[in-house]
Amino acid sequence: MNASRAARGGDNRDRLLRAAVRAFAERGFHGTTTRDIAAAAGLSPAGVYVHHRSKEELLYQISHSGHERTLAMVRDAVARADTPVDQLRGVVGDFARHHAEENTSARVVNYELAALSPEHVAEIRELRREISNELRELVERGVADGSFDCPRPRIAATAVLSLGVDIARWYREDGDLSPDDLAAAYVDIALRVVGAR
Amino acid sequence: MNASRAARGGDNRDRLLRAAVRAFAERGFHGTTTRDIAAAAGLSPAGVYVHHRSKEELLYQISHSGHERTLAMVRDAVARADTPVDQLRGVVGDFARHHAEENTSARVVNYELAALSPEHVAEIRELRREISNELRELVERGVADGSFDCPRPRIAATAVLSLGVDIARWYREDGDLSPDDLAAAYVDIALRVVGAR
Repeated sequence: MNASRAARGGDNRDRLLRAAVRAFAERGFHGTTTRDIAAAAGLSPAGVYVHHRSKEELLYQISHSGHERTLAMVRDAVARADTPVDQLRGVVGDFARHHAEENTSARVVNYELAALSPEHVAEIRELRREISNELRELVERGVADGSFDCPRPRIAATAVLSLGVDIARWYREDGDLSPDDLAAAYVDIALRVVGAR
Repeated sequence: MNASRAARGGDNRDRLLRAAVRAFAERGFHGTTTRDIAAAAGLSPAGVYVHHRSKEELLYQISHSGHERTLAMVRDAVARADTPVDQLRGVVGDFARHHAEENTSARVVNYELAALSPEHVAEIRELRREISNELRELVERGVADGSFDCPRPRIAATAVLSLGVDIARWYREDGDLSPDDLAAAYVDIALRVVGAR
């Protein structure tokens, strides 16, 4: 395949993934046909199968790359700071901003897991476990060094992640909270949840 | 209609609503047909239309009664207690327990709003506004009388509701947290979010 044909293939793949995100967010995985996605991407139904074996494969690509990016974002934020307080600030700020800015794809990533094949869902659950572990270990480090004071670190970590994920459900771009404003408020709330001193 | 025929009609209506909740939770509104729901309820497709004009009407019934019950639950919890701290304990405890115990129907009630007709969605949004207002006013009362200390009461109220709603996404009956255990932990977390003294 020559370079321009390879580039066109990459463009089509990106267009398909974006069209699939919009369709799944609007009508759910089971309410979307491969034909809908192809039409929204300006391709023939056969054009979908050049890049993806099935509709489930498209959802898996979206879900897998979404979770990998989130895990990398959380690990970067932890690596950027030296203390549990500053690490929590970074993680919660980035996580909240992401779920506000990318709320459409975040809804697909978080609310359509049950539509994945058992093998794919197991793989995604492993990535989710790694994200949860980062948060839990961060809260536990803060409790251990006396920066945080909370009776149930695991539930506190769950609550902090849950607050961030649920932004994708309720956040609206046309509301009066910018992603940065929301991120700052949620950093303050997360520090309260873990009892930062 | 004689009494036993009326009772049978009520039974069928309840069976249909329960079957619709399960189907919508499993495959989403757009991925579910009226035929699926009828089959799950042990009725003919025509039997659905005796009670509901359309699939959308079924979703509306589920959503409307779910939101009305939640609003009544929140108002009851506020009325039961005298101080903002005790009111918040009651509201958050009941809200969290409900979203754990009834997580399947809570997912349908909270994640399928976009599938409602414009008139129905407006009606449901009004009920949601009333639920949000109860929480916001409760936090504001606590700030006003000095029981709570938080810089942004409206965002704190949003976060407390959001924590409760998102339980329906992640809670599993076979996990190691009972609804009562989760409710108690979330009461503690909500008191932290509002800065209860």
